[in-house]
Amino acid sequence: MRPMNEKQPFVYELHAQDGAARRGVFTTPHGPIAMPAFAPVGTQATVKTLTPDELHSLDVDIILSNTYHLHLRPGEDIIAELGGLHQFMAWDGPILTDSGGFQVFSLAHKRSLDEDGITFRSHIDGSRHRFTPEAVIRIEELLGADIIMPLDICPTPDNRREVERAVELTNAWAVRAKQAHSRADQALFGIVQGGIFPDLRRQAAEFLTALDFPGYAIGGLSVGETKEEMYATLSAVVPLLPADKPRYLMGVGTPEDILEAVARGVDLFDCVLPTRVARNGGLLTREGRINIRNARFARDPNPIEPGCTCYTCQRFSRAYLRHLFKAGEILGLRLATIHNIHFMEQLMKDIRTAIQEGRFYQFKDEFLSRYRISDQEARHKNKLAYRQRRGLQVR
Amino acid sequence: MRPMNEKQPFVYELHAQDGAARRGVFTTPHGPIAMPAFAPVGTQATVKTLTPDELHSLDVDIILSNTYHLHLRPGEDIIAELGGLHQFMAWDGPILTDSGGFQVFSLAHKRSLDEDGITFRSHIDGSRHRFTPEAVIRIEELLGADIIMPLDICPTPDNRREVERAVELTNAWAVRAKQAHSRADQALFGIVQGGIFPDLRRQAAEFLTALDFPGYAIGGLSVGETKEEMYATLSAVVPLLPADKPRYLMGVGTPEDILEAVARGVDLFDCVLPTRVARNGGLLTREGRINIRNARFARDPNPIEPGCTCYTCQRFSRAYLRHLFKAGEILGLRLATIHNIHFMEQLMKDIRTAIQEGRFYQFKDEFLSRYRISDQEARHKNKLAYRQRRGLQVR
Repeated sequence: MRPMNEKQPFVYELHAQDGAARRGVFTTPHGPIAMPAFAPVGTQATVKTLTPDELHSLDVDIILSNTYHLHLRPGEDIIAELGGLHQFMAWDGPILTDSGGFQVFSLAHKRSLDEDGITFRSHIDGSRHRFTPEAVIRIEELLGADIIMPLDICPTPDNRREVERAVELTNAWAVRAKQAHSRADQALFGIVQGGIFPDLRRQAAEFLTALDFPGYAIGGLSVGETKEEMYATLSAVVPLLPADKPRYLMGVGTPEDILEAVARGVDLFDCVLPTRVARNGGLLTREGRINIRNARFARDPNPIEPGCTCYTCQRFSRAYLRHLFKAGEILGLRLATIHNIHFMEQLMKDIRTAIQEGRFYQFKDEFLSRYRISDQEARHKNKLAYRQRRGLQVR
Repeated sequence: MRPMNEKQPFVYELHAQDGAARRGVFTTPHGPIAMPAFAPVGTQATVKTLTPDELHSLDVDIILSNTYHLHLRPGEDIIAELGGLHQFMAWDGPILTDSGGFQVFSLAHKRSLDEDGITFRSHIDGSRHRFTPEAVIRIEELLGADIIMPLDICPTPDNRREVERAVELTNAWAVRAKQAHSRADQALFGIVQGGIFPDLRRQAAEFLTALDFPGYAIGGLSVGETKEEMYATLSAVVPLLPADKPRYLMGVGTPEDILEAVARGVDLFDCVLPTRVARNGGLLTREGRINIRNARFARDPNPIEPGCTCYTCQRFSRAYLRHLFKAGEILGLRLATIHNIHFMEQLMKDIRTAIQEGRFYQFKDEFLSRYRISDQEARHKNKLAYRQRRGLQVR
């Protein structure tokens, strides 16, 4: 690890570019992040089923954790008392914490939004809480992640009135968050909202870049719009962001979405997909996703993916994994998670190498010609369910 | 690993003796077992939550797996097709499979016992199965464990009529199992039943030792009798077993029971206790068992047991473990399991060293003076529930 510049701990160094796709490194107080990067999600201060040492051995550079969940349980004060999130969970690499805004709308009860913040009840015990831009920064400073997000509003992407209001509030709250933020060892990113409307995205991007954040997140995508709308929005918004700062596409995603976003200049991703589908028996392969519970694997002596170098594939057969899932054994969840995170990190490594060698678009085409995109229908259903659950009410 | 004697793969070498307590090594085709030994239980071809590599790094010499469970799911034919249990689960150390008789009585439905075997329905799908001494040996030969058990009957320990019948059947079935068994790379042990009745234990021990098994199990203990009855039974039965063969106390146990049994000459143990209580947040320490869910650990920065060298204690605080349990995170189950197996293996190591150095009884007294024996009441309730569940009917 290179010695950190104490005055400027967060620097994005561009190493190579291939069209809009960028390979670079973002330095943080807990080490560099090779970009484009994928951050596995550790909602409750643990990437589900894995130890920090396993994350390191899977070449994970950065993980994401959730402000909403950690605020409710165990509470930011306890984590601060135990030395902060890194020490609490024994992960010494970079961490990013989200703002909790998304979870308030997808999980919390009786939420109500006003100019100043959001009031809600915990989905765990019904207790009453209030998130303001300042309160969220206070929580995130106590948690102590390397990259932190300001409170934002993620609207229904094609409801113009709702999106206008979300951009207005998110922009205003970004100013307040920046003022409230005091830890120099944390990078507070700006979040560009704007749904699928190019003019609103531009308005948000121009407002936020004028505030000079050390990095920019693109929020409000992969939440109900079509893939085409998401890609078009990325094509419109990424060129508006400064080239010397990392661009983070929140909550994305699938291998195909990551490839399309990298092709448009995105540097950082996070998503529950590889870990969540793993726990349902969904395993990522170069040909697409398979479900290991399928009866056709009952006597299959092969690894999940022949040639895969992950621990699971080096050691265990599909037949054994299927048995573990059918028998409800926790080891199955672990081994599937290891394979899927390895798959994602390998994909990011391949992407970085391809950019370096000036053949990213060829790599992308080859990958996508082989990879069967799965569950379009299930994906659509999930998104609709999310919209209904959210019931975003803007006063 | 020493080169195996192909003609005599199973040899018990006595290395030291301290009173009745013995330190020795039992050789198997998959490596030597340092005794006294504790075998963690891997019911469904996995020691719950752990990988085989973790078991090795915890210095586990031998694991137990369950014939009843593996027969029902995935089935012995599939396991044989995948190369046997060792290859199936990727564990290259010694394995012991039980006979399944105990699970038939504690788990299966509509069981009926006759001279020739037991008919029952699967607790998973209601399918009909029949275990005879020969059928069980066939299953165990397909699984391919190093040490295998013949079908036996585990009676209510203080019901003389039931115990008499159990000894009679178990002895007769031992003869049939021995005749049916053909794999020279497996050691078929004899199982001594007899409840708490010294004369019936003697009858069983004399009958079985005459058959010259490569090892002897003591069955039907820790199933409802008092601790005093168990220890008295061990004092009566162990001296009847040959000194040049290992003695295996089935389904035991707690640290205190293991110490008392070693003091009476027992060499091998298995029990779900350390792994099962771990998954409920019960952690073994030199002072006794603690429950990590307790509110007093919410801000506790210490490891489970200061000075413990296990991975969990080297890396994580009680506060973090409590958080994982309260949040329902799988990593908590893993870390607790690692600690408890480490505790048991460390106890066995300490026992072996103490025997070697001629201070076993001093070690035992010191350990027990510090270790608070827990859950006597819970233990009693569990045993009563077991008796009721079994409803053993001997025709």
